[in-house]
Amino acid sequence: MSIMFLHILYLVAITAEAMTAALAAGRRRMDWVGVCLLGCVTALGGGSFRDVLLGHHPLVWVEHPLYLLVTAGAALATIPIARLMRRLRALFLMLDAVGLVAFTIIGCNVALALDEPVIVVIVAGMITGAAGGVLRDILCNDIPLLFRRELYASVSIVTGALYLAGLNLGLPHDPVMLAAMAIGLAMRLLALRFDWHMPKFVYTETLH
Amino acid sequence: MSIMFLHILYLVAITAEAMTAALAAGRRRMDWVGVCLLGCVTALGGGSFRDVLLGHHPLVWVEHPLYLLVTAGAALATIPIARLMRRLRALFLMLDAVGLVAFTIIGCNVALALDEPVIVVIVAGMITGAAGGVLRDILCNDIPLLFRRELYASVSIVTGALYLAGLNLGLPHDPVMLAAMAIGLAMRLLALRFDWHMPKFVYTETLH
Amino acid sequence: MSIMFLHILYLVAITAEAMTAALAAGRRRMDWVGVCLLGCVTALGGGSFRDVLLGHHPLVWVEHPLYLLVTAGAALATIPIARLMRRLRALFLMLDAVGLVAFTIIGCNVALALDEPVIVVIVAGMITGAAGGVLRDILCNDIPLLFRRELYASVSIVTGALYLAGLNLGLPHDPVMLAAMAIGLAMRLLALRFDWHMPKFVYTETLH
Repeated sequence: MSIMFLHILYLVAITAEAMTAALAAGRRRMDWVGVCLLGCVTALGGGSFRDVLLGHHPLVWVEHPLYLLVTAGAALATIPIARLMRRLRALFLMLDAVGLVAFTIIGCNVALALDEPVIVVIVAGMITGAAGGVLRDILCNDIPLLFRRELYASVSIVTGALYLAGLNLGLPHDPVMLAAMAIGLAMRLLALRFDWHMPKFVYTETLH
Repeated sequence: MSIMFLHILYLVAITAEAMTAALAAGRRRMDWVGVCLLGCVTALGGGSFRDVLLGHHPLVWVEHPLYLLVTAGAALATIPIARLMRRLRALFLMLDAVGLVAFTIIGCNVALALDEPVIVVIVAGMITGAAGGVLRDILCNDIPLLFRRELYASVSIVTGALYLAGLNLGLPHDPVMLAAMAIGLAMRLLALRFDWHMPKFVYTETLH
Repeated sequence: MSIMFLHILYLVAITAEAMTAALAAGRRRMDWVGVCLLGCVTALGGGSFRDVLLGHHPLVWVEHPLYLLVTAGAALATIPIARLMRRLRALFLMLDAVGLVAFTIIGCNVALALDEPVIVVIVAGMITGAAGGVLRDILCNDIPLLFRRELYASVSIVTGALYLAGLNLGLPHDPVMLAAMAIGLAMRLLALRFDWHMPKFVYTETLH
C-alpha cells in the first residue's frame, strides 16, 4: 500500500515540479523547447543525479520514459494557464513541499536497496529531493536557491534521518514513513509561514 | 559504408564544435588552457553526458583518447586564425548544423544498440546533438542558448524521429539515415536563413 | 608507505579545499547548509566527477562516508574562524597547491588501476585536481577560475605527465611520485609568487 501511495505522490510531485520550473523558464523568456527541457530536468534531475552518483542503472526515466512525457506535458500545459497559477501559489508551495519529502523517502529507499551506509542513504534522499532545483537554477544562471534560502535541504535531512531512525528501531515501515513525511512537511510549511531561515555566513574579504 | 561516412562527419563535427567553442572562450578572455578545455567539453560533452546517463562505458574519449587531442588541437589552432573565421561564418554555421544531425544519428544508434525504448532513443540523440553546447554555455556563465534560440533541439528531435520511423517501417538503413539527416539539415538551415523561432513563453510574475 | 603518505595529504587537502570553499560561500552570503554543501562539492567533486566519467563505482564518499562529515565539518568550522583566515592566506594557498598535486597523483592512480591509456590517465589526474573548483565556481555563478587564471590545470598536467614518464622509465615508484609532486608544487608556487599566467585568447567579434 505504501508503495502505491508513494508512487501517486511521486507523480503529483514531478508534475508540480515541472509546472513551477515552467514558470521559471517563462521568467527567463525561454522558448517552448526550453520550457519542456527545464521542466524535465527539474522534475527528474534529482533522481537521475542520485542514480548516476550511486551507479544505479537504468535511470528512472530510461526505464519509464512515460515520465518524460508527463513532465514535458505538464511544463507545456503551464503556458496557457500561467495567469491562473498566481492564485494557486499556496497550492504549489504545498505541492513542492510534498514533493520534497516524497522524493526524500524515495531516494532513501533506492540507497537502502543498494545497502549503502546510513550517511549515504540520507545524502541520497537529500539529492533526490533537492538536486532538481539546483540544476534548474544553474540552467537559469542563478546561484542555487538551495544554498541561500529557507529550510529546504535541512527538511530533507531531517525527514531522511527520522525515517532511518524509525526503521532501525524496528518500528513498522508504513507508520514510520508517514510520520517522517508529516514531520518534514510540517517543518517545511512552518518555515514558509514564519519565514524561518538558516543563519547566513557573510564574509567580505578576498582570500585569493 | 554508412558507418565510415558517419565517422568522417563525426570528426568534422567535433573539429568544428571545438573551433566555435574556442571563439566563445576568446570572447570571455579565457587563457589557452580554458580554450582547450572548453573545446573538448563542447565537442565531446554531449556524447559523454549521454553515456553517463545511459550507464554506457567506456566513454568515447576514454576508448579513443585521440579525440581529446583532435579537439584540443582544433581549439588551439583557432587562436591564430580567429580573424579569418569571421569570413567563414557561413561555413561554420553549416558545419554546426551538419554536426547537430550527425551527432543525433550517432546518439540514436548508441541507444538503439542498448535496446532502449523509442522515447529514450530520441532523447539520447538530442542529448548527443545539443548537450555539448549547453555545457559550453554553463561554463561561460550564460543561460544556455538551446533554451532560448532558434530551432535546434527540435531539429534534433525531428531528425531522430524520422530516422526511427523509417527503420520501424522496415526501410533500408542507409537511405533512411541520409533522408533523416538531409531533412534535419534543411530544417536547421532554413531556420537560420529565415530566422524561424519557437514561440517564447514570457512570464513576469513571481511565484516564490 | 607512499600510500599512507598520500592518504594523509588527501585528508589535509580535502579539509583545506572545504575551508576555502566555505569562504567562497560566505562571499555569496550563503546559509550554513550552503556552506556545508559547497564545501563537500568542492572537496569531493573532482574525484566524484572522475569516477562517474570512468564508470568507477562506488565513489570515494559512498565507500567512505566519513569524508562527507570531515568536509562538512571543516566547512562549518570555518565560519567562526573566518577572520583569522586572512592571516593564514599564505598557508591556505600552499595547502591548495599541495592538494592540487596530491589529487592529481591519486587520480592518475585510479585511472592506472583501470588500465586506461596514457592520455586518459593524465586527464583523470587533472579532473581530480581541478574539477572540484570548477563545480564550486559554477555553483557560485562565476566563470570557472580554472579557465581564466594562473597556472593550475597546466600544473596538474605537468605533474601527471612527469609521474607517468618516470614510471614508464621503470624508475622506482616513491621517488618518482615525490619528484613529480615536488616539481608540480614548485611550479604552482612560483606561478603564484611571480604572477605567471598562460597567455589569454581575446576575441571580440560575434560569430552567431
